[in-house]
Amino acid sequence: MSLTNASPADAAQAAKSASHVLQTLSAAARNDALTAIHDGLAAAKDEILAANARDLELARQAAADGKLSQSLVSRLDLGKKGKWEDMLKGILDVRDLPDPVGRVTLRTRLDDGLDLERVTCPIGVLLIIFEARPEVIANIASLAVKSGNAAILKGGKESTESFVAISTVISRALETSQVPNGAIQLVTTRDVIPQLLALDRHIDLVIPRGSNELVRFIKDNTKIPVLGHADGLCSIFLEPSADSQQAADVIVDAKTSYPAACNALETLLVHEAALSTILPPVASALAAKGVELRCDPRSKAALQQALPELKVVDAQDSDYDTEFLALTLAAKTVESLEEAVLHINTHGSHHTDAIVTADKEHAEQFMSAVDSAGVYWNASTRFADGMRYGFGTEVGISTNKIHSRGPVGLEGLMIYKYKIRGNGHVTAVYGEGEGRKRFKHEPL
Amino acid sequence: MSLTNASPADAAQAAKSASHVLQTLSAAARNDALTAIHDGLAAAKDEILAANARDLELARQAAADGKLSQSLVSRLDLGKKGKWEDMLKGILDVRDLPDPVGRVTLRTRLDDGLDLERVTCPIGVLLIIFEARPEVIANIASLAVKSGNAAILKGGKESTESFVAISTVISRALETSQVPNGAIQLVTTRDVIPQLLALDRHIDLVIPRGSNELVRFIKDNTKIPVLGHADGLCSIFLEPSADSQQAADVIVDAKTSYPAACNALETLLVHEAALSTILPPVASALAAKGVELRCDPRSKAALQQALPELKVVDAQDSDYDTEFLALTLAAKTVESLEEAVLHINTHGSHHTDAIVTADKEHAEQFMSAVDSAGVYWNASTRFADGMRYGFGTEVGISTNKIHSRGPVGLEGLMIYKYKIRGNGHVTAVYGEGEGRKRFKHEPL
Repeated sequence: MSLTNASPADAAQAAKSASHVLQTLSAAARNDALTAIHDGLAAAKDEILAANARDLELARQAAADGKLSQSLVSRLDLGKKGKWEDMLKGILDVRDLPDPVGRVTLRTRLDDGLDLERVTCPIGVLLIIFEARPEVIANIASLAVKSGNAAILKGGKESTESFVAISTVISRALETSQVPNGAIQLVTTRDVIPQLLALDRHIDLVIPRGSNELVRFIKDNTKIPVLGHADGLCSIFLEPSADSQQAADVIVDAKTSYPAACNALETLLVHEAALSTILPPVASALAAKGVELRCDPRSKAALQQALPELKVVDAQDSDYDTEFLALTLAAKTVESLEEAVLHINTHGSHHTDAIVTADKEHAEQFMSAVDSAGVYWNASTRFADGMRYGFGTEVGISTNKIHSRGPVGLEGLMIYKYKIRGNGHVTAVYGEGEGRKRFKHEPL
Repeated sequence: MSLTNASPADAAQAAKSASHVLQTLSAAARNDALTAIHDGLAAAKDEILAANARDLELARQAAADGKLSQSLVSRLDLGKKGKWEDMLKGILDVRDLPDPVGRVTLRTRLDDGLDLERVTCPIGVLLIIFEARPEVIANIASLAVKSGNAAILKGGKESTESFVAISTVISRALETSQVPNGAIQLVTTRDVIPQLLALDRHIDLVIPRGSNELVRFIKDNTKIPVLGHADGLCSIFLEPSADSQQAADVIVDAKTSYPAACNALETLLVHEAALSTILPPVASALAAKGVELRCDPRSKAALQQALPELKVVDAQDSDYDTEFLALTLAAKTVESLEEAVLHINTHGSHHTDAIVTADKEHAEQFMSAVDSAGVYWNASTRFADGMRYGFGTEVGISTNKIHSRGPVGLEGLMIYKYKIRGNGHVTAVYGEGEGRKRFKHEPL
């Protein structure tokens, strides 16, 4: 790992060359590098947390001056309960996952002595751009090494001290391993991002981790595939058959357990037959957690009748296209499952959407028809997360329609190649006509 | 299926809406539509071939006037031996493939009563732009219907008559099926392409089938993911341990069986120890097929000594970056396997590359280190083909580093979604701390 002052083109070229070595390393060699990273970080806890404290100090001042958001300060804090331990555990979790490289996913005998094999392999070079979450460096370096990909890392400037401290430790650790120098490139100045985004010959995938604005900027400024999501506008559709308590639990969790998360609930669609039965207890539970409801006229009327003391706000059309990332929830009445699905497919962000219902058939219909990465039945949208899915850690959550969708773990960093082992085989002898050989196409 | 005069935005919007219905159809409903397409085309053979003959007549005139290439005329000819039968057989082959929709590829018990499932589903809306291969319409329509994707089709103007004839038949056939109107949109004017390429909200994947120039134009003019390849610069590395006859067979097949194909051989890398032993018989076999060799000084010297009567041309540097698509082959001497790999990873197009050797270890090293969609041992690069791989038919050959690589069949048109079925489960109760629940993460 090198803190590079090389030009972006040279850095990307070096990463590409390193990726060609990295992809030939054994699982043991890659795992040994991860152990070294883990042990190095564990031993350097004090110096890293001290560096993080310096970042935090500056950030708190900036927040006090109104120049930085409190949520950014919170994300920056590596000393926050469980964060350091989670980071270290994540490295070992990744190390101990099955090797994603070299898995044979298809094997076909094309003809005698001519076998086709599809084998997983690394994508090549990743460009990871993230904001002020210092632990992401360790996550991403682990995932890159485990998956045999080279990576160029660019972190947010508010975490510079933490970032340099962690990367210095990772750098020392990797020097003791077979992972080639140049496989992990660090970039510390922001002005090189546009140059990096132009290097589509050497960089194979961009992974932005951060604000919607960051992701949108990157998507708009590169031809390299981008894995991630700009928006997380999640909806829940509440059916009249739902259990009131389950509905309240799921909706309160989805809205309030971490309102700034991309998998938090933003729109509640209420079947008209649930307006006077299940919506009121749900609304009470939300209000008890400080959630402001923005209602369409029908849901407002139903709530005013059932709960005269509850304050609700009139929804604007734009509220149904808004990712609030706060204790605000747009509510809308729909007349059918079909209308709910249409609303979600039109206004949602194809991230994660749920139905709360006792009707299995409706649930399956909803999950089949909603065009989102995650479609849930009687569960909180906040389950959309790589750790919760059991992926060990996650690279991000993708709303792309190709390659990887939803929480992305190691598999999202892999592609495959086809290998054919023959014996001097040629194509010209095969065909449909008389005297031509036929392929056997036997699955092996 | 509709021959539309709607605006590109309306057409794409309609395709998107139709895709939401199409993705919920059963396999039986989609297969029935394919049977109807097959039967309709079989019954309309005469009228379609008559339309194709009119296209051919115009194309032959244009070729005689030097306005069109002979290879385009050849690709246009639906009456060419076996082409019509292949087209019809391709539809049934696709129909009879296992249903790609709804395959469960991961199932994990997150906790009691909380199951995660990853299920394959269609990508959504495909935009397929192709040149003058009329049979591609039937191929692509079949693949789209089978995979549950909507498609917007744009064919080359030289095949307009064939195209309209085939699409009219497909349109009639689909009207008898459950596949919704709008699922297959036809576009007959070229000027709408730039507008379609801008509709990244409604179109999920662009598949260009045609010349390098077409693919490059599309890649340079859209933010929608593009599946395909601009270049096919395939190489073979010849080792001294290779069997001479095998080497000659493989290299002659790779270069001459269809020189205009993307999987044809363009660069021959010769290990220095093979220059005077195996290169001469290989060069003789190539010369016998009319191949012009462009040699570096060392391979030229070796050939002049072994075969004084053989004519070879001096290679220019640019020859090693050229996709000749003709009976021309660049030859270059390398000193090691590593040098061959480096040359291929630097000058190749990551399409398909082969090694000819008797050394299994070298072969495995080559296949591991070469960063291409296809890496072969003792087999012709021309095997890189969806039919030959046993995929039934192919959407194209991808040199992308994400999603799909190499010949792409049905699987390349699929993505997945995550389904969670719960029982009112919430996330807030899980975690690492005391009193928090742990996930079970049991594979099911």
